[in-house]
Amino acid sequence: MVQNKAFIYKSLPNGWPVPDKNLTIEDIGFDENAAPPKGGFTTKNYYVAYDPSQRGRMRDPAIQSYSPPMNLGEPVISVSVIGKVLRSDSSSIKEGQIVMMQSSGSESYSKKDESAVKTTQIIEPKDGVPLTAYLGLLGMTGMTAYGSLHEIGKPKKGDVILISAAAGAVGQMVGQIAVREGLHVIGSVGDDRKLDFILKDLGFTSGFNYKKENMADAVKRLAPDGIDIFYDNVGGELLDVALANMKLFGRIVACGSISTYNNAKETTPYGVKNYGAMVRKRLTWQGFLVFDPNIVQWRKERDENITKWIQDGSFKSIDHVTEGIDNAIEGFLGMLKGENLGKSILKIADPE
Amino acid sequence: MVQNKAFIYKSLPNGWPVPDKNLTIEDIGFDENAAPPKGGFTTKNYYVAYDPSQRGRMRDPAIQSYSPPMNLGEPVISVSVIGKVLRSDSSSIKEGQIVMMQSSGSESYSKKDESAVKTTQIIEPKDGVPLTAYLGLLGMTGMTAYGSLHEIGKPKKGDVILISAAAGAVGQMVGQIAVREGLHVIGSVGDDRKLDFILKDLGFTSGFNYKKENMADAVKRLAPDGIDIFYDNVGGELLDVALANMKLFGRIVACGSISTYNNAKETTPYGVKNYGAMVRKRLTWQGFLVFDPNIVQWRKERDENITKWIQDGSFKSIDHVTEGIDNAIEGFLGMLKGENLGKSILKIADPE
Repeated sequence: MVQNKAFIYKSLPNGWPVPDKNLTIEDIGFDENAAPPKGGFTTKNYYVAYDPSQRGRMRDPAIQSYSPPMNLGEPVISVSVIGKVLRSDSSSIKEGQIVMMQSSGSESYSKKDESAVKTTQIIEPKDGVPLTAYLGLLGMTGMTAYGSLHEIGKPKKGDVILISAAAGAVGQMVGQIAVREGLHVIGSVGDDRKLDFILKDLGFTSGFNYKKENMADAVKRLAPDGIDIFYDNVGGELLDVALANMKLFGRIVACGSISTYNNAKETTPYGVKNYGAMVRKRLTWQGFLVFDPNIVQWRKERDENITKWIQDGSFKSIDHVTEGIDNAIEGFLGMLKGENLGKSILKIADPE
Repeated sequence: MVQNKAFIYKSLPNGWPVPDKNLTIEDIGFDENAAPPKGGFTTKNYYVAYDPSQRGRMRDPAIQSYSPPMNLGEPVISVSVIGKVLRSDSSSIKEGQIVMMQSSGSESYSKKDESAVKTTQIIEPKDGVPLTAYLGLLGMTGMTAYGSLHEIGKPKKGDVILISAAAGAVGQMVGQIAVREGLHVIGSVGDDRKLDFILKDLGFTSGFNYKKENMADAVKRLAPDGIDIFYDNVGGELLDVALANMKLFGRIVACGSISTYNNAKETTPYGVKNYGAMVRKRLTWQGFLVFDPNIVQWRKERDENITKWIQDGSFKSIDHVTEGIDNAIEGFLGMLKGENLGKSILKIADPE
């Protein structure tokens, strides 16, 4: 047996997860000599993606939602984990390959049974494309951003797009893609460091810090002729302001409504009043999940375009990397609190 | 000169229009011997459609909206007026034809110039189809209902549809079409007379009087498994209840939000809180105008199906007819106040 440190979902959090109480780091052990599960494989893991949806899965199993609840006492499930195959009993996955596993544990070593094979993606390393890009722009978050922006947002060159939580994992990717496609890209963020980030690092056209400037004033100032696309990660007051400022036939991409689900038991969500604009301006407002067929159909185009854009340097995969599984809790809370700039990633080991 | 009584937009209403102050009946005269305008035609009118959007056009011209404001001192503009051609200088419109004119005055006789020809529809009388059907199911209201229900609502047999203002001009047509196409049709109305009407005359599956039963309770009771389509003419609290009860991938057809524009200066619109369902349930919510290409494309199918359904008796064109232009104000206010059952129509003269 070798040490197999894992990031464990220990007990049900009430509000913000408490380190060492709700979340722990524990050695769950790994037998490097054991055969892989029948039809499955084992891995040594390099990178684990953090994602806000992980918090939603830390819930009372009686509460229904679109993703299943996590199991207490087990490693925290990540949307995507990248590792190297140690041993394999599967005909389609070979020893030494780099793989990305879906809905997999935050742990140093993994044992995957046969059922995991069909959702595991083999990564062919490409020059100039870092492995971490597969957790971001080339992973689920990038698929979310690329698919929904195109399928629901229907961007055209010159369109004005407003993005809420613009420095967040999805927001920053939507913004980068929109910049690349010639849109006028406006970001809303909650602090000046993030404002610098979207303007200087990501190349947004403009942006504002909603804690410093009234949202309605900011949107009027930055989009005096109105908004074609509102990419909404938040809901709440900015959604209301956006509705009031949409152009005719504008599109609202409903990616998230964080403002309605944080502390949902304690506060009533902000009541949106300007929905009359849906009729008056003939708007379309649509929600989605990254697994929906209308989103997934953009995958090939996403893979080709984003790979090309990363390789030619016109695009950056910007990551916030937490080093070492011992710091996994801290990195997770930083992501939840919106302190991390770029895609939040836990690095377990250097790729060999 | 003969008498040409007209329903006149006299002065800007503040709230409910006041008879004899904001709206009047006046003789504007008509010279039956005068030649028609160059390239145009003259008509003797039979029927004039009432429509809630007429109130929106009685506004300060400085306020922008999708339809132009009406001109003070002129006949009230109606979406559709049916009459017989008296004289014509147009090559495409002939004396004696029955025509339906768009955006035309509420008056006994009309003089139409060349620009009106392209929006004027020649009605070929069909057995078993009353002329008034062309103001309703076969007119703009029916186009609104048929086009939006199919384009945005995407109805499938067995779907559960909830319709607000279900006894209103659009609501009752949506309901009849949905019944005919095998949906489970639930109507929300504001009095028991209307409830009787949608259940007994229109064949809705079920319905409730929201003034007598809590909306959330009623929707839970009548749609325990949720709603596939919410056809929204009203906005407000029922919209919030609908959002909370939509099924996955449900569709919201934003046809109107009367609750947000009546008395808009005096009260704050109801704040909708359950929009988080847009993301969680991957809903689509879309507004439209009947002139939009995606709605108009359903015209041929609408004409064929509705004509067939009226002729075979499976469908009723249910009208609320105000007799005589002297009663035009009363009929208009009844329509605005929601007192009229069926499509509200002003009859000026019997077809000859």
